[in-house]
Amino acid sequence: MTASTRLELIAVPGLPLVRAGDDLAGLVLERLGTAGLVLQDGDTLAFAQKIISKAEGRIVNLATIAPSPRAVEVARVACKDPRLVEVILRESRRIVRCARDVLIVEHRLGFVMANAGVDQSNVTGGGEFALLLPEDPDASAAVLREAFRARAGRDVAVLINDSFGRAWRQGTAGIAIGCAGLPALVDLRGEPDLFDRRLRVTVVGHADEIAAAASLLMGQSAEGQPVILIRGLRRDRPATPAAALIRPAAEDLFR
Amino acid sequence: MTASTRLELIAVPGLPLVRAGDDLAGLVLERLGTAGLVLQDGDTLAFAQKIISKAEGRIVNLATIAPSPRAVEVARVACKDPRLVEVILRESRRIVRCARDVLIVEHRLGFVMANAGVDQSNVTGGGEFALLLPEDPDASAAVLREAFRARAGRDVAVLINDSFGRAWRQGTAGIAIGCAGLPALVDLRGEPDLFDRRLRVTVVGHADEIAAAASLLMGQSAEGQPVILIRGLRRDRPATPAAALIRPAAEDLFR
Repeated sequence: MTASTRLELIAVPGLPLVRAGDDLAGLVLERLGTAGLVLQDGDTLAFAQKIISKAEGRIVNLATIAPSPRAVEVARVACKDPRLVEVILRESRRIVRCARDVLIVEHRLGFVMANAGVDQSNVTGGGEFALLLPEDPDASAAVLREAFRARAGRDVAVLINDSFGRAWRQGTAGIAIGCAGLPALVDLRGEPDLFDRRLRVTVVGHADEIAAAASLLMGQSAEGQPVILIRGLRRDRPATPAAALIRPAAEDLFR
Repeated sequence: MTASTRLELIAVPGLPLVRAGDDLAGLVLERLGTAGLVLQDGDTLAFAQKIISKAEGRIVNLATIAPSPRAVEVARVACKDPRLVEVILRESRRIVRCARDVLIVEHRLGFVMANAGVDQSNVTGGGEFALLLPEDPDASAAVLREAFRARAGRDVAVLINDSFGRAWRQGTAGIAIGCAGLPALVDLRGEPDLFDRRLRVTVVGHADEIAAAASLLMGQSAEGQPVILIRGLRRDRPATPAAALIRPAAEDLFR
């Protein structure tokens, strides 16, 4: 794959707070238009997971949750709200690590992540509500991509990103939990390098690198810039979903 | 920290192959000038680790290496050249995982990474030579930053990136192994979110996100674009070195 030579990332300005049922493609197109930006074929739009989840109504009222005995026990160790832990466990396959203030799980979609991505911050109504990951983020991205094609006649890629902790690194980094129209992984194995040796192991987490780049503009403390327009990415590989970025448990570096 | 609203990444064009002793700041300034690009205060320059290592002469001739019995044994399991394994072990504190085609170590600088970053690809002379990580990448970045200040009178940040595998994710992603003049980590704990709740755990691996973004333009299979100019990053936090991104062993998510 030829690398891009110039890349531009632009925060879509002035987006309103998103509520369940909102038409995200419509909102983005409207704000782009107001800002004098015209969507082009080949553009990529990166969406913060939170606004996808909100638009899809993935909000749980904790007052309606009765924690199981297991959730109560895990909550005691993790020092978290047992109702929140119940919601986290329902979204999870297994607990990877549980300690004070730490609850790392394998999400039902395969992500190894803190709190199964369940989030109490930035949700209207405050602490009594929690926001879950989208039901199927790759599908959400595909639906949005199709909406941009139908409404603007443009062939864009769509990516949904979230901030993940890492095993051996401090700090979070943007990660692609869903994408459509771009290659999540780029496999360079077998391509010659500069001196015509074969590259040994070079599969690039392309969508994760895009997600990290978009994350630089999204910020963390508010919803101010939840959609980033990315212009200049080459797209000469077949598209694959973000699910391809999940390392199968059998290849987990710790098993 | 206020998020950036617009970010531009430009591959510095036409850089020659780098050799030991080369003046990287001079080469970059020359190529920027030829391309009509003028360095500005606040710009960030991301350098691929390989060209830093080459300029610093971090090349080992494998013909000079006598592998220890331990290196021979590890090489047998990993199916690698025992001399290469000897070099890897000399750069490492401990082996994290060893299996066929897999040798993950804790590098002497603390990075958990494949092959201690020792690389046989894209090194002049081919398979008999191996390239090591810079001796002290944060120091390398600081020296380069100072060179740009002295030579161009510009206050730029410098980042050195490399591609790392991840525990639970397929594919590599760009990571900052050294930086100067920018905050490697951005700590948002205690900042209010949109609904004035306090954020719980939000320390962002800012330099790693920049590194991943730069990696999108660097490509993997050649040295074609080893330096990326990044324009538009806010810099309203104190600078910290990339060493801050290394999770201390005691906080390792697996201990």
